[in-house]
Amino acid sequence: MPEPDLRALAERLQEICLAAGLTVATAESCTGGRISDALTDVAGASGYLRGGVVAYSDHAKKAVLGVPASVIGQHGAVSAQVASAMASGARERLGADLAVAVTGIAGPSGATVGKPVGLTYVAVADAAGIDLRRFTWHGDRGSNKAASARAALELLVERAAVIAGRDRDPR
Amino acid sequence: MPEPDLRALAERLQEICLAAGLTVATAESCTGGRISDALTDVAGASGYLRGGVVAYSDHAKKAVLGVPASVIGQHGAVSAQVASAMASGARERLGADLAVAVTGIAGPSGATVGKPVGLTYVAVADAAGIDLRRFTWHGDRGSNKAASARAALELLVERAAVIAGRDRDPR
Repeated sequence: MPEPDLRALAERLQEICLAAGLTVATAESCTGGRISDALTDVAGASGYLRGGVVAYSDHAKKAVLGVPASVIGQHGAVSAQVASAMASGARERLGADLAVAVTGIAGPSGATVGKPVGLTYVAVADAAGIDLRRFTWHGDRGSNKAASARAALELLVERAAVIAGRDRDPR
Repeated sequence: MPEPDLRALAERLQEICLAAGLTVATAESCTGGRISDALTDVAGASGYLRGGVVAYSDHAKKAVLGVPASVIGQHGAVSAQVASAMASGARERLGADLAVAVTGIAGPSGATVGKPVGLTYVAVADAAGIDLRRFTWHGDRGSNKAASARAALELLVERAAVIAGRDRDPR
């Protein structure tokens, strides 16, 4: 079972999306499915959730999400550029209004020069473009995964609320 | 955090796959990412897990996993045929030795004539073909999801152990 705060965020997202007719997709690397698991714990999630991709290998990022090999080669799998490309790819391939992507180093191994364990990028793609956030968590693998999932859902709820508000009151 | 038994199954799977050099992919409908979340809770999962697809809509099953629209149309999204096609599609698209797929009705809604809440198909695709199991759970949404994830991991561990044993002792 996901943490209580993930459940509350999932319920809030579903409420916003069902009311505004928005659809959602996920693209998860270090969170490994934690986000979509939390979303699908709420009955009625199929009303707005198109699906997700757990892109746990470079092959999956390229083959299933269409992340260019050159972007991974140049910036590394844990980078702002790859997070953005994962979000755009999930949004397009799953046909959703919003897509959230997470790529990071959950630990305990995986750190490289300039990229410590805990480094995580979260991106949300929507029709207006990409919103991106960067975090460095300092917990163990379990708490880093949970923190990344929570941060991703928070950004997704924030963007969904903005889009729902704009659609309601166009200027 | 996943249930303790999912954790134990994930550790067992990782041990078998890393020792035998086997790779794994997932294709989840009703479990919504619970399986890949459990697998990625174990440090070192990136050594054998290619990735997964959460196919929560017919669109995702078709566009990302290559399940033929005719198979969904003829048998329904919750069917042995769709579970098999999801497993084959995930295995091929994610380039894995084994892929597990789950499709079912977690509830509380979604039941149709002849397909009660709790009906779940689990399939594992490997080079030898498809292994398929059918269950009908009688819990609530949460416990049905957990039971489906557990059954899927059990079949996956079973098949991985058979393949690892055969590779070790070819006759």
